[in-house]
Amino acid sequence: MERILSKQNNKVKAWAKLATKKGRLEQKTYLLDGWHLVQEAINAKAKFHAIMATEEQMQEHLADVPHGVPAFEISKEVAAHIAGSKTPQGIFAEVTLPEKTFNPSYVHDGLWLFLDAIQDPGNVGTLVRTADAAGFKGVVLGTGTADLYAPKVVRAMQGSNFHLEVLQGDLNDWIAAFKENDLPVYGSELNEEAKPYQDIHGLSAGALIVGNEGQGLNPELAKQTTANLYIPLLGSAESLNVAVAGGVLMFRLSLGN
Amino acid sequence: MERILSKQNNKVKAWAKLATKKGRLEQKTYLLDGWHLVQEAINAKAKFHAIMATEEQMQEHLADVPHGVPAFEISKEVAAHIAGSKTPQGIFAEVTLPEKTFNPSYVHDGLWLFLDAIQDPGNVGTLVRTADAAGFKGVVLGTGTADLYAPKVVRAMQGSNFHLEVLQGDLNDWIAAFKENDLPVYGSELNEEAKPYQDIHGLSAGALIVGNEGQGLNPELAKQTTANLYIPLLGSAESLNVAVAGGVLMFRLSLGN
Repeated sequence: MERILSKQNNKVKAWAKLATKKGRLEQKTYLLDGWHLVQEAINAKAKFHAIMATEEQMQEHLADVPHGVPAFEISKEVAAHIAGSKTPQGIFAEVTLPEKTFNPSYVHDGLWLFLDAIQDPGNVGTLVRTADAAGFKGVVLGTGTADLYAPKVVRAMQGSNFHLEVLQGDLNDWIAAFKENDLPVYGSELNEEAKPYQDIHGLSAGALIVGNEGQGLNPELAKQTTANLYIPLLGSAESLNVAVAGGVLMFRLSLGN
Repeated sequence: MERILSKQNNKVKAWAKLATKKGRLEQKTYLLDGWHLVQEAINAKAKFHAIMATEEQMQEHLADVPHGVPAFEISKEVAAHIAGSKTPQGIFAEVTLPEKTFNPSYVHDGLWLFLDAIQDPGNVGTLVRTADAAGFKGVVLGTGTADLYAPKVVRAMQGSNFHLEVLQGDLNDWIAAFKENDLPVYGSELNEEAKPYQDIHGLSAGALIVGNEGQGLNPELAKQTTANLYIPLLGSAESLNVAVAGGVLMFRLSLGN
């Protein structure tokens, strides 16, 4: 097995570039950091380009890695450089960036979450993880939303991107297709012109849109929905964190009580 | 007004130390970063030690600051140093660290959130903000929970610490006092020995405990509860983010439908 001890190594430079969108698009791969995510990718039969691990992590996990995947032993310094953090676990995988084309006209069932310009990578990842937990079928990241394969998004998703459809797209197209297929689309708003979310009971198919952290849902999208929902705020807080609001709404829609 | 342009200034050094628990305990103050939080503190009649702002922010906001508060004009470099971030808004307040003593035996009403060893400051702050939004009366930060006045906690609370009781305490004492006063205490667990959370309808008084991000609720605390609740996970995610789970449970308890 090749051992890589220097941050100047060309492979290390290429892996570090996967922290940027430009690097991911050029190399058509993204990075998984930590054994939990690597294992999720193995279970999902993702296409592996490389496994990189410190001596200790390699000994612990090499037997579980698919045969034929190029494996590289890296120093702790190199691991920290690739991770962009001081104390990574020390095991990584470089996997193929999914290039999905998905026509929303073909959707006839399941619950979908649409993200309108969610900027914080932690919020995006947590919303995908929560959609998975709430039994949603897919998540669509609309324009202005943090990049799906940015390291902080990937970390916060905790592998949920391997469990449900996660796509990037124009929400105008998705809303139009859902309406064409008679699937309801619910926006979420803070104003009381919207309906209280408790009015909606268990739903088997349709979409929920959550909007930008500061601006809320784009008014142009809010106009196109079946209805807009709000969560009554009982105390003095002006708003909820978008991932918390999304969680409250998603579990209401999916569990229905 | 005194102008401070150097990071070496002793006042600047003291403000920067408020990022640490040691610094806060020594100086008995903490730091608010950004006009929104400063304004919340003004509305709550917090005790101000100082207002620090860049020239631009001072011009915009000085008229709204209580009379008699020492005001310091700071350079952008000093602002970034105090904030510990590159692009702070540029207005800060140093306010008195509340020293609350609160005897749980006196609690006879309202909903309370207990945090058991929640480590991530963003989660702690988001949980306090969500408890506020859900109409809770107070939040108790148990042993092992991130410090209430750490900068990232303060930022994520978005001023909710001025709206409801936020205390640090031993959850064993709080659970015992609630039980003594016939108030129910619900734990949250991931195992299915717990009750589905939908079994609980609107509650006017009692407590909800949420547990550590990785370990869940401390089993010693879980034993002492009235009942433990779980959120059914419908997809393949192994767990929910603790702030999302707390939000789903709190709105269920407070809105009751």
